[in-house]
Amino acid sequence: MIGRVFSRNFTRTYKHSLNSHTIQESIIRSEYAVRGAIAMKAMEIERQMETGTKFGFDKITHLNIGNPQDLGQKPISFNREVLASCLVDDPERNRMIYSSDAVDRADHYLSHINHRAAGAYSDSTGIRVVMREVKDFIEKRDGVEVNEDNIYLTNGASEGITYMLRLLIKDENDGIMIPIPQYPIYSALITRFNGKQVPYYLDEETGWRMTYEELEKAYFEATAKGVNVKALTLINPGNPTGQVMSQEDLEKVIKFAHEKRIFLLADEVYQKNIYVDKEFCSVRKALHGLGAPYSNDVELASFHSLSKGLLGECGLRGGYMELHNVNEFAHAMAYKSKAVGLCSNIIGQIGVGLLVNPPTEESVSKEVYDLYKKEEQTIFDGLKHRANLITEKLNNIEGVSCNQVEGAMYAFPKIQLPRAYCHLANTLGIQPDLKYCLDILEKTGIMIVPGSGFGQEEGTFHFRITNLVNCSLEMERALDMIGEFTEDIMSQYRYKGVETVKLPHEPILDSEYQTI
Amino acid sequence: MIGRVFSRNFTRTYKHSLNSHTIQESIIRSEYAVRGAIAMKAMEIERQMETGTKFGFDKITHLNIGNPQDLGQKPISFNREVLASCLVDDPERNRMIYSSDAVDRADHYLSHINHRAAGAYSDSTGIRVVMREVKDFIEKRDGVEVNEDNIYLTNGASEGITYMLRLLIKDENDGIMIPIPQYPIYSALITRFNGKQVPYYLDEETGWRMTYEELEKAYFEATAKGVNVKALTLINPGNPTGQVMSQEDLEKVIKFAHEKRIFLLADEVYQKNIYVDKEFCSVRKALHGLGAPYSNDVELASFHSLSKGLLGECGLRGGYMELHNVNEFAHAMAYKSKAVGLCSNIIGQIGVGLLVNPPTEESVSKEVYDLYKKEEQTIFDGLKHRANLITEKLNNIEGVSCNQVEGAMYAFPKIQLPRAYCHLANTLGIQPDLKYCLDILEKTGIMIVPGSGFGQEEGTFHFRITNLVNCSLEMERALDMIGEFTEDIMSQYRYKGVETVKLPHEPILDSEYQTI
Repeated sequence: MIGRVFSRNFTRTYKHSLNSHTIQESIIRSEYAVRGAIAMKAMEIERQMETGTKFGFDKITHLNIGNPQDLGQKPISFNREVLASCLVDDPERNRMIYSSDAVDRADHYLSHINHRAAGAYSDSTGIRVVMREVKDFIEKRDGVEVNEDNIYLTNGASEGITYMLRLLIKDENDGIMIPIPQYPIYSALITRFNGKQVPYYLDEETGWRMTYEELEKAYFEATAKGVNVKALTLINPGNPTGQVMSQEDLEKVIKFAHEKRIFLLADEVYQKNIYVDKEFCSVRKALHGLGAPYSNDVELASFHSLSKGLLGECGLRGGYMELHNVNEFAHAMAYKSKAVGLCSNIIGQIGVGLLVNPPTEESVSKEVYDLYKKEEQTIFDGLKHRANLITEKLNNIEGVSCNQVEGAMYAFPKIQLPRAYCHLANTLGIQPDLKYCLDILEKTGIMIVPGSGFGQEEGTFHFRITNLVNCSLEMERALDMIGEFTEDIMSQYRYKGVETVKLPHEPILDSEYQTI
Repeated sequence: MIGRVFSRNFTRTYKHSLNSHTIQESIIRSEYAVRGAIAMKAMEIERQMETGTKFGFDKITHLNIGNPQDLGQKPISFNREVLASCLVDDPERNRMIYSSDAVDRADHYLSHINHRAAGAYSDSTGIRVVMREVKDFIEKRDGVEVNEDNIYLTNGASEGITYMLRLLIKDENDGIMIPIPQYPIYSALITRFNGKQVPYYLDEETGWRMTYEELEKAYFEATAKGVNVKALTLINPGNPTGQVMSQEDLEKVIKFAHEKRIFLLADEVYQKNIYVDKEFCSVRKALHGLGAPYSNDVELASFHSLSKGLLGECGLRGGYMELHNVNEFAHAMAYKSKAVGLCSNIIGQIGVGLLVNPPTEESVSKEVYDLYKKEEQTIFDGLKHRANLITEKLNNIEGVSCNQVEGAMYAFPKIQLPRAYCHLANTLGIQPDLKYCLDILEKTGIMIVPGSGFGQEEGTFHFRITNLVNCSLEMERALDMIGEFTEDIMSQYRYKGVETVKLPHEPILDSEYQTI
C-alpha cells in the first residue's frame, strides 16, 4: 500500500481559490486516526524503500486496520463463486469450474434483477431480494418481526453511519454520545457535521463495561453545557476495546435512551467475532425482550457489514442498516441521502445476501457445505487463537496491560510510558502515544494506532493492534518486536530526568500532519 | 424495481426524536429529481401491480435514468471475465472458461495488490496500479503530463462530485455556477451543503450552447447579491441537454474561470457518447492548449465514470476524479474525506482500469480484440441510432421540439403544454411538467423526468428521456405512446377555458411528496 504523501508544509499562498482559508473548519478539524498520521508515515517509508532507502525491515506490517485479506486471510470460496457467476452470467459454462450450488445461488439473485443485470443501478435502498434476506436474517437471529422496507443496503457500514449522523445533527448544539475509546469514524463525522461529541467512558477496570452511572454523568454534563443530546452510539463487540456486552447491560442503555428520548446507533459489525463463552445479543433483540414501551418506541439504527466477521470482504464495500421505530419523514430523508449516490455497488449488495443467508446443510450439497464450514472454522480458529495470543503476550510486556480480547479484531492495551519519553513527545508537539507508534513503525515496520485517535482517559496511553496477521508465528514475532521495542524505551527513559532529554535535530512531525 | 413507498402524510407527532423538526433544513430542502416524485409514483404502481391492480400496461419502462443494463444493454465480455477472475483467483481453472487475455489482465491487477486480495481495503485514493492506468489514459488522450497522485478512484463519479462540492462550499454565501438545465446531483448537493446555486442558462436556440455573456451575467448577478462564486460546473457532453462543447467554447469558460479565480468542475462522464461529427475535448486538454498562465493556474476537478460510455456498468459504482492545479492542503482534505469511507469498492476500481486501458490489437489475441470491438460497436450503434430516432420522433409530436441529441444518453425536448392543463397542475400544487410526466406514467407506464427537476427557463416546460431501451422497436413504440398521449392532452385541453377545468376528487400529489 503506497499512497499520497503530503508535504509537511502546506502551501499557504492565496494562489489557489481552494485553500486552508476557504475550506470549512469542520472538515479541517475532523480527524480519522486509523488512516491518519501513522498511515502517512508508512506511505513515506514505503516510498523511500522503493527508491532504495534501507530500513531495519523488509516490509510494513499492517496491524493498524481491520483489513483481514490484506494480511493473508482467504475469502470464502462459495461466496466468490457466486459473485463471479453474477458477473459472467453463463450458468452452463460456470458450472464447469464452480460448484452448481454457487451457480444456482447466483441465478437466484440475477433472476430477481431486471434483465439479470448486475451492472444496473438498483433502487437506492438496494436489491429487493437481498433486503428480504436481511429481513429474514434479523427475524431469525432475534425472534422479532422486521419490515423489509426498513433495510438499507450500503457501501460498508460506514455509509449508513454517515447518513444517520448527518440526519441526527441539525446544528452545533446537537450532541452524539460515543463510547471512549471509540472507533474514530464517529468522532470524525460528528466533527465534520459540526455537532458535539458527548463522550461516555468505558470502564477499563471491569473489562471495558458500559455503566448506567457513566451514561447519566456524561449526559448531564453535556446538557448542563447546553448540548442537545440526540443519539447514543454503542459498538458491540467493542472497537477498539473488544468487550462483548451482556443483554442486561444493553437493557440499561435502552432504558436510558427511552428515558432521555434519544436515538440509538448500534454498531454490530463484529457480531460473529466472539472468542469467549458469551453470546452476541443485538440491541434489536434486547429491545424486543424488554417489550413495550421500549420495543415500539426507542428509535434504532443497527449496522452490519461484509468487511468483518469471518468473511473479511472489506474491499467489496457491502453492508446494511436497519432502521427501527423510525419516523416516515426520517425514512424519506435517509432515502434521499442515499439517492444522490444512486445505489450501493451491486456486488457488495449481493455479498450482503451471502453474509446473511449462508449455505446450509439443507440448501447445498454436502461437499459445498463442508468446505464452507471448514473455511469459516479455519478463519475463526485463527482469529481466536491470535486474540488469546495477543492478550497473553501483551500482558507479558513491561508497562503494558491488556484486557482479555473477547471479541472484534483488536486489542487496546494500556501502556505506561516513561515521563521523560512523554516530555520528549510533548516538546515535539505530538501525543506521547503517537510518538510511540511512530517510533515502532520506524524501527520495526509495524503499524499500530495510538490510543489518542480513539480517545482514552486523560493521562493514560494506549494503542490499538489487530489480531489479523494470518499466521500465528508472524503475529508472535510482531508481538515480540513490540515487546523488545517497548522494553528498550523503558530502559532508555525510565530513570532519565526530563531535563536531560535531547531534542532531535528536526521535529519528526508538525501539527498539521496530524490533522490529515 | 420496487422500492419503499412513502405515505403521503408524514407523521408530524413528537413521538420520534428524529422528525421533520429535528432534521437540517438543507437536507429537507435538497431535491433529486431523477429519483424523486416520478420514481416514487412508479414504485407505488409496481406495488399495486403486484397485488393485482390492473393498469393499461404490463410493466414500467424506465426512460428516466441513465441505467443502460436495466434496459437490456449487455456488459462487455472481456471486462466481466477480468473481474470474475479477480474474484476467484485461480488462473488455471479460469482459463478453462475465460479467455487467457482476461485471466492475464486479472493477474496484472492482482499481482499489484498485497496477497492478491481483491477483498482488502485499498489505500483511500485507490489501487496504485489503476491510478497509473488513469494517468496514462489522460496523458494519451490530452497530450499532457499527469501526476498519478492527483487521481482519486471513486464509487461512480457522484462520490467525487460530492467531495469537491463539500470542500468548495464553506458557508451559505458560497455559490457554485451550474448550467441550467443541469444534472440534479449538483443542485441537490449544493442545497445539502447549504451553498448557493448560481445558474447560468444554456441557450436552447443555438443547441444548448454556453456563452461567455451568459456566464458574465450570471456571475455579476450573483456577486451583486453578495454571493461568493467559488466554482463553475460544466457538463460535456451535456446532461440532460446532449450538446457537445467545442474547444473554443471551453477556452472561453477557462478564461472566465481564470479571470474570476474560480474552480472548474468538469463532468465528462459521457465523453465516449458522441453521435455526431464532433470530437470530445476535455477541459484538461483545452487548458493545456491555452498554455500559461491558464494551464498551470486554473484549478480543475474532472470526473469520469464506468456507468456511462459504452460500458454502462452503473451497478459496479466505479469512477475517478483528477485534480489539477490543486493546493496540497485541499488535496489533504479530499484525502481525508475519502478516508472516512475507507476506499471505493475494489471491483469498481478495477473496472476503472478496464475503462481507461481497454484491450488493444497489440495486447490481446485477435479473437478477443474482435469480440471486444464488436460488442462496443453494437452498443454504440444502438445508442446512436436511438439518439437520432428520438430527435426525429419527438420533433414530429405536436407541441414538442427537440435539439439534435449530439451526445450523452438523453434528449431534453421542449413541450408547449396547454394553458388549461397548466392551470390544472397549478391548482393541484405541482409543476405542469411534473403533472405531464405523472400522467404519462399512469397511462403508459413510461417513466420520463420533468424538466423542472433539471431547471429550465421560466415559463418553458421540458422533459428528459433516455435513449437506452436496448431495442429500437421498443424505443419507437415508447416514443409513439408519448406522441399519442401528448396529442390527446393537446386536443383535450387546447381550446379549454381555464375556468372549465374540473379538479379530480383528490389531489394526486401533495407538496411533501415532491421533496423526496
